[in-house]
Amino acid sequence: MAAQPETLRVGVVHGPNLNLLGTREPEIYGRATLAEIEAGLAERARALGASLEFVQSNHEGVLIDWIQSARERVHGFLVNAGGLTHTSVALRDALLAAGRPFVEVHLSNPHAREPFRRTSLLSDIAVGYVCGFGPESYRLGLEGLVHRLRAGVG
Amino acid sequence: MAAQPETLRVGVVHGPNLNLLGTREPEIYGRATLAEIEAGLAERARALGASLEFVQSNHEGVLIDWIQSARERVHGFLVNAGGLTHTSVALRDALLAAGRPFVEVHLSNPHAREPFRRTSLLSDIAVGYVCGFGPESYRLGLEGLVHRLRAGVG
Amino acid sequence: MAAQPETLRVGVVHGPNLNLLGTREPEIYGRATLAEIEAGLAERARALGASLEFVQSNHEGVLIDWIQSARERVHGFLVNAGGLTHTSVALRDALLAAGRPFVEVHLSNPHAREPFRRTSLLSDIAVGYVCGFGPESYRLGLEGLVHRLRAGVG
Amino acid sequence: MAAQPETLRVGVVHGPNLNLLGTREPEIYGRATLAEIEAGLAERARALGASLEFVQSNHEGVLIDWIQSARERVHGFLVNAGGLTHTSVALRDALLAAGRPFVEVHLSNPHAREPFRRTSLLSDIAVGYVCGFGPESYRLGLEGLVHRLRAGVG
Amino acid sequence: MAAQPETLRVGVVHGPNLNLLGTREPEIYGRATLAEIEAGLAERARALGASLEFVQSNHEGVLIDWIQSARERVHGFLVNAGGLTHTSVALRDALLAAGRPFVEVHLSNPHAREPFRRTSLLSDIAVGYVCGFGPESYRLGLEGLVHRLRAGVG
Amino acid sequence: MAAQPETLRVGVVHGPNLNLLGTREPEIYGRATLAEIEAGLAERARALGASLEFVQSNHEGVLIDWIQSARERVHGFLVNAGGLTHTSVALRDALLAAGRPFVEVHLSNPHAREPFRRTSLLSDIAVGYVCGFGPESYRLGLEGLVHRLRAGVG
Amino acid sequence: MAAQPETLRVGVVHGPNLNLLGTREPEIYGRATLAEIEAGLAERARALGASLEFVQSNHEGVLIDWIQSARERVHGFLVNAGGLTHTSVALRDALLAAGRPFVEVHLSNPHAREPFRRTSLLSDIAVGYVCGFGPESYRLGLEGLVHRLRAGVG
Amino acid sequence: MAAQPETLRVGVVHGPNLNLLGTREPEIYGRATLAEIEAGLAERARALGASLEFVQSNHEGVLIDWIQSARERVHGFLVNAGGLTHTSVALRDALLAAGRPFVEVHLSNPHAREPFRRTSLLSDIAVGYVCGFGPESYRLGLEGLVHRLRAGVG
Amino acid sequence: MAAQPETLRVGVVHGPNLNLLGTREPEIYGRATLAEIEAGLAERARALGASLEFVQSNHEGVLIDWIQSARERVHGFLVNAGGLTHTSVALRDALLAAGRPFVEVHLSNPHAREPFRRTSLLSDIAVGYVCGFGPESYRLGLEGLVHRLRAGVG
Amino acid sequence: MAAQPETLRVGVVHGPNLNLLGTREPEIYGRATLAEIEAGLAERARALGASLEFVQSNHEGVLIDWIQSARERVHGFLVNAGGLTHTSVALRDALLAAGRPFVEVHLSNPHAREPFRRTSLLSDIAVGYVCGFGPESYRLGLEGLVHRLRAGVG
Amino acid sequence: MAAQPETLRVGVVHGPNLNLLGTREPEIYGRATLAEIEAGLAERARALGASLEFVQSNHEGVLIDWIQSARERVHGFLVNAGGLTHTSVALRDALLAAGRPFVEVHLSNPHAREPFRRTSLLSDIAVGYVCGFGPESYRLGLEGLVHRLRAGVG
Amino acid sequence: MAAQPETLRVGVVHGPNLNLLGTREPEIYGRATLAEIEAGLAERARALGASLEFVQSNHEGVLIDWIQSARERVHGFLVNAGGLTHTSVALRDALLAAGRPFVEVHLSNPHAREPFRRTSLLSDIAVGYVCGFGPESYRLGLEGLVHRLRAGVG
Repeated sequence: MAAQPETLRVGVVHGPNLNLLGTREPEIYGRATLAEIEAGLAERARALGASLEFVQSNHEGVLIDWIQSARERVHGFLVNAGGLTHTSVALRDALLAAGRPFVEVHLSNPHAREPFRRTSLLSDIAVGYVCGFGPESYRLGLEGLVHRLRAGVG
Repeated sequence: MAAQPETLRVGVVHGPNLNLLGTREPEIYGRATLAEIEAGLAERARALGASLEFVQSNHEGVLIDWIQSARERVHGFLVNAGGLTHTSVALRDALLAAGRPFVEVHLSNPHAREPFRRTSLLSDIAVGYVCGFGPESYRLGLEGLVHRLRAGVG
Repeated sequence: MAAQPETLRVGVVHGPNLNLLGTREPEIYGRATLAEIEAGLAERARALGASLEFVQSNHEGVLIDWIQSARERVHGFLVNAGGLTHTSVALRDALLAAGRPFVEVHLSNPHAREPFRRTSLLSDIAVGYVCGFGPESYRLGLEGLVHRLRAGVG
Repeated sequence: MAAQPETLRVGVVHGPNLNLLGTREPEIYGRATLAEIEAGLAERARALGASLEFVQSNHEGVLIDWIQSARERVHGFLVNAGGLTHTSVALRDALLAAGRPFVEVHLSNPHAREPFRRTSLLSDIAVGYVCGFGPESYRLGLEGLVHRLRAGVG
Repeated sequence: MAAQPETLRVGVVHGPNLNLLGTREPEIYGRATLAEIEAGLAERARALGASLEFVQSNHEGVLIDWIQSARERVHGFLVNAGGLTHTSVALRDALLAAGRPFVEVHLSNPHAREPFRRTSLLSDIAVGYVCGFGPESYRLGLEGLVHRLRAGVG
Repeated sequence: MAAQPETLRVGVVHGPNLNLLGTREPEIYGRATLAEIEAGLAERARALGASLEFVQSNHEGVLIDWIQSARERVHGFLVNAGGLTHTSVALRDALLAAGRPFVEVHLSNPHAREPFRRTSLLSDIAVGYVCGFGPESYRLGLEGLVHRLRAGVG
Repeated sequence: MAAQPETLRVGVVHGPNLNLLGTREPEIYGRATLAEIEAGLAERARALGASLEFVQSNHEGVLIDWIQSARERVHGFLVNAGGLTHTSVALRDALLAAGRPFVEVHLSNPHAREPFRRTSLLSDIAVGYVCGFGPESYRLGLEGLVHRLRAGVG
Repeated sequence: MAAQPETLRVGVVHGPNLNLLGTREPEIYGRATLAEIEAGLAERARALGASLEFVQSNHEGVLIDWIQSARERVHGFLVNAGGLTHTSVALRDALLAAGRPFVEVHLSNPHAREPFRRTSLLSDIAVGYVCGFGPESYRLGLEGLVHRLRAGVG
Repeated sequence: MAAQPETLRVGVVHGPNLNLLGTREPEIYGRATLAEIEAGLAERARALGASLEFVQSNHEGVLIDWIQSARERVHGFLVNAGGLTHTSVALRDALLAAGRPFVEVHLSNPHAREPFRRTSLLSDIAVGYVCGFGPESYRLGLEGLVHRLRAGVG
Repeated sequence: MAAQPETLRVGVVHGPNLNLLGTREPEIYGRATLAEIEAGLAERARALGASLEFVQSNHEGVLIDWIQSARERVHGFLVNAGGLTHTSVALRDALLAAGRPFVEVHLSNPHAREPFRRTSLLSDIAVGYVCGFGPESYRLGLEGLVHRLRAGVG
Repeated sequence: MAAQPETLRVGVVHGPNLNLLGTREPEIYGRATLAEIEAGLAERARALGASLEFVQSNHEGVLIDWIQSARERVHGFLVNAGGLTHTSVALRDALLAAGRPFVEVHLSNPHAREPFRRTSLLSDIAVGYVCGFGPESYRLGLEGLVHRLRAGVG
Repeated sequence: MAAQPETLRVGVVHGPNLNLLGTREPEIYGRATLAEIEAGLAERARALGASLEFVQSNHEGVLIDWIQSARERVHGFLVNAGGLTHTSVALRDALLAAGRPFVEVHLSNPHAREPFRRTSLLSDIAVGYVCGFGPESYRLGLEGLVHRLRAGVG
């Protein structure tokens, strides 16, 4: 990844229950649907000279399949694994095997919730971590990832 | 859910390996198959003025998908998550997002088995919990759930 | 207990502070007094072909004395040990010595309260467990117990 | 408890082994007997415009019975539960059910003794806590409780 | 206790459920009743130049009351606290306050049972500990205690 | 399984990310693809008088479905559950329900990696365990399993 | 400290953030400023025949410097170390080195807050402990300390 | 903070050792000095319609003093507490008392370092958290904070 | 071991440092040397119709060798493993392999010493346990063992 | 070890109690003696172009001495350390110092036994691990080790 | 630091409360004041061809500031951090950032004191560690450090 | 040990694997053999007016035997117990029984290695501790020990 790519390609991974965004507990998560968030994020990506691919699934296996196939096409991942964050060694292994830098993002602040949400199986292998800003977490995470990729560090 | 519904609709969720009921270790779990249990449960539901929808899957993702879609149609859930009880934050999140009261049921008594079965990721957000009565656990859990829904507490 | 008894006799054990039911925090526990609950439960027992004996005490020792003497007369116990649930090995030993199946019941859901309420010294030796349904927990527990006794499993 | 009572009534609860005060290890606990301490405390209460009721028992059940009945008559409790401090959920439940503010007191400093004395099942629900001053702990705890009750906070 | 008493007096404390000896699980605990064990123990005491006083109760408070009063009359205690062994700080405090050496005995071997039986709140303040020999544990514990008292160590 | 079968049938289960073998981190896992490993393993099986069936999936549910159906056809399993090893009670339950002996294998040595890889939810119910030999782990595990099945122990 | 001093001198130590008293969260801590509290406390001290010296700092080092110098002048300390209570071994060491008895006080009840506030690095070396009474905690702690000093125990 | 301020003012807090940025381990932290980072950040703030105030200190007390005084002037904080992140309850208390939303930032990824860096005493009370992007973490955190303040959530 | 042997043979195992008895810390362990203790124990054995074999070593391996060879000759063991009690799985395995009942004895009371002495790797597989009586522990343990062997339980 | 040796030499280490093989609990460990197992293993080694040296001892020190001297002569070790597996840092150090790859083997499956057998002080530095196949574990471990040595990885 | 310096310069860091040496608990720490210790240490340094710079402070921040500035001038540090040893990640970070080898010293033996003193946040990054010899610990630590620096290892 | 001996005699104990010094991992431990280290140490001892006796063994039992016999001849010990440091209660007991002060030394820094090396069973009863200086650790430890013995503290 040392060479500076013309266009950066980033895979955006949404884990279980994130398809409900905008319809569930809007006072917490805001009223934007996942489609709207993805649209805004894609626009921001274009401004940064990057293009995005998205996946959302409630199935751990689907996410792993997708990461395996996407790793050939993308320079990095933006990952909000939802509840799998705390339980899935298999997802961790998929990201390890993908060999691409990724940024972990969360809408809410997991440290302010149940104790078991304080343990992430992804955070120690992520290059960066953003949480607590609602949908804005995705945008900040994307900017941080692109910055890392541009700098050739990731 | 404050208003008293004419007919209560309840979603019944069977997790991994419960499709084997009746054919596996009958001396422990009895000889009734899952189909027979569901038939008996549906009959009991009718007597209580309730109707049931069922799902069984060995796939966490299928269960989450189903809970997400069913939450529009049902007033509550009866959940036997099998082995996912102890490991799935994603299933917990799906039930939290569904915003419907649910009762956790188990055929056997998890407290009398391996230590890791003493930890449930669902029990603190369930309105009620029934275990140890074999297939009868479902019936008791249904009655408790209907009682809660009728009382407008859940 | 293999032979099918004509009338099942069940001992119902209420631990410390349950004598306050109906007068204390009615928004949580409902407005039924312990006497009313016992009356309703006795009626339900008759319908199931069972008779009940009751004890309530704030004294661990009184409960143990009673279980020791009742074990000659009853086929099983329904036990809501209140705060002793989490602390009394002596009560556990009394139930072990009684040699009768018992069902553990709780009005509220202990898993949703303080962490120390997640530990029960009774649950791994109970044949069944019901919690979270208010006074209805007793009725469901009784039905489960009678079902177990009738089936000759207990 | 919002209204300012003319005379405050306080229940003073002494747990197991406190009846031995003055006769046991006087170099640690001083030479005052429990009767003398109660007399001095009652005098101090009068000066504060309060009256006291006392109970001492080595029986957890007696203490719970007494708290249940006293809660109708008193505005708050002063509690030295002795060894039950560290083990009795039932006593905690009785105090919770009583719905009256209470202050936890100890003659010695439990933090300077065996590790299991560092855990109190009462301290997180007490309005105040005083320890380490010998019989003086009771007086200070009483003053603090009366101050809380007068201020209408408790 | 430095002077050599003509006749040693020993208090024998039986905790909860030990009144059932001989009638409960005889294949484990033998067929001797508590009365028979006490008779045999008293005989052995006489041979050792000692006399015994007995108490059995399912009430922690009764045991504490008794220890408090007996401490004036006895030179030491033989204590089988049953389930209270693992949970009663108040009983521990009573024995500490009594200021008499005591020996902890158990019929079975608590280390070979549930994990929570591995913790004794008495063993670190006992002068000796005997377990695993059934009723014989009492006799051995008595001999050890008398030996300690005769040697003036206790 | 007491009778000596003419041909042993063994189910080989590959968990998440094992489909990437040979293409990912070849310096660690070697250059053999999963297909090549399976071919070599099948050949070795034939020499041992056994036939193999294979499954690989990144979906826990697919693996459970397959184990449920395969249990009718096979005499035992060879299981490399990948990341699910450390997290899936449901997979454990499927293997328990299958009622066939299985051997747990790993390419690398999990004990030399992150602490959470030291916990396996399968190893205490496996008849044997082989790890650390790369693809050779499968062959050794197969030989061990066949040996166990031939000996009628499994 | 055996001789009875004419006038007792007490050092009062306020840790980090206590300078905000009265201006921050008055519904919790009351509306009295630190200056007002100190004035009231000084008045109470005079009535007890004692004089006070005060220090407040957000700097652990300043508190330690002050304790080191004050130990020559005072007979004891009243210490509310704020957040340092739970983290500062250096402050503990300063108090140990000072060789003067001290009483630990807190405005709120740390046992009813975050779990990490249950650990105090001072409480096992304090002669007494008072918490939960708001500014009144200081007055009660002072009275307890003076009583200890007068009694020559400290 | 509900009203939309014309210019947002943000306090930026740098904890111990961050003054060494650019001169220490540049291969990890980059070659930008703290002054350069602050200059870039101030520029970015202007673009966002915000102004910044900075503090850096190796003294916990100086940071607390500054936060106490700044809370009158700023709408929120950006906090990189360095090593104090894991140890300072007093700093946490200062931020709690300040009553302003803050974002926690780190240059490196603490989850990928020593185990004790996994515990933050600030993260559960922060509105957002950004780490792992080097100096870019500050910029992303600032944008997230401004976004929160503009949205009137913080 | 069902048949009643004419003469019982018991192997007595003394672990590391017990050869120093009588010469080391006599105020704790008494002034009897190991030889004197063995002589007294042998005499007591004769009175019980038993004969003894002794071994003492500071070498774990010598003790294991001896237990392996002695198991052919003895009906049970009396074991004081000294410091190996808390650390030697190999000694535990030797006793398990020997297939003879054994009694664990200690001169002092390990529960009253360092925390690591509370863990015994032998106690859960011993038939009985005696500690705290000095050399008398051996005599009591021997009597208990002989009683067990005579009763045909061991 | 990069060069391909003509004949591989392997040291086989049997820890405490393994000399009893074949005579102790044959239903678990089979009826083959250690001599027979070694003979079979030596034959298998010849077929693999390897020669073996054996040691068995109940003395940790003898095993360490032997490993130290053998490391000059062998290319790798096959180690069944028995009970020392869980307790001997010294044995671990000897294997580390030897600088030769080794495979850890066990006859039974330690994960299915007491909890303390789940901890191995050797497994994280072993190149491979085989357990659960009885004497066959040695053969499989040998084949794995030879394969590793031939591949020049070890 | 590879080149052999003519004169080694060493920074000596004394943490909180060490300024009291000689005046506090002289029976433990000896009667030498810090000034006397420094004088003796400087003399010893000269004999070793080294020169010393000293700092003592009760302020963590002062120590960090000093280490930051001294790192340009010294070849290594001798650090007795007092109570900060167990709590200060910031001091650890300062020493890490300084990039100079350091030796940790303590006057007393922290392992023989309170449990929390067994944890040092410095020891795993120190090149050497000396404790328990009183002021002599400094001299030994200095000699060890100089030896390391001379050998070019540090 | 109060009287000042003309010549101090010190026993030097080397535990398992230390006989390999100089031949194993010389880049870590240096190239000096144990014999060379002992020679240098003896020379240094002579300069200090002390004489040394040495023992090295890979056998815990040999070390204990030697310590037992040497305690009559020496005034103190210098102990590098190697891997036994972390596991041998028996060695600890031997040093306790020896009744001579000892200094614990290590060549490397155990705190910078595996977590289980952070636990020493010797350090809390040692008078001093030196680690991390390679063979120099012995010299420093000897000087510290001699200083302690000369000062009559040990």
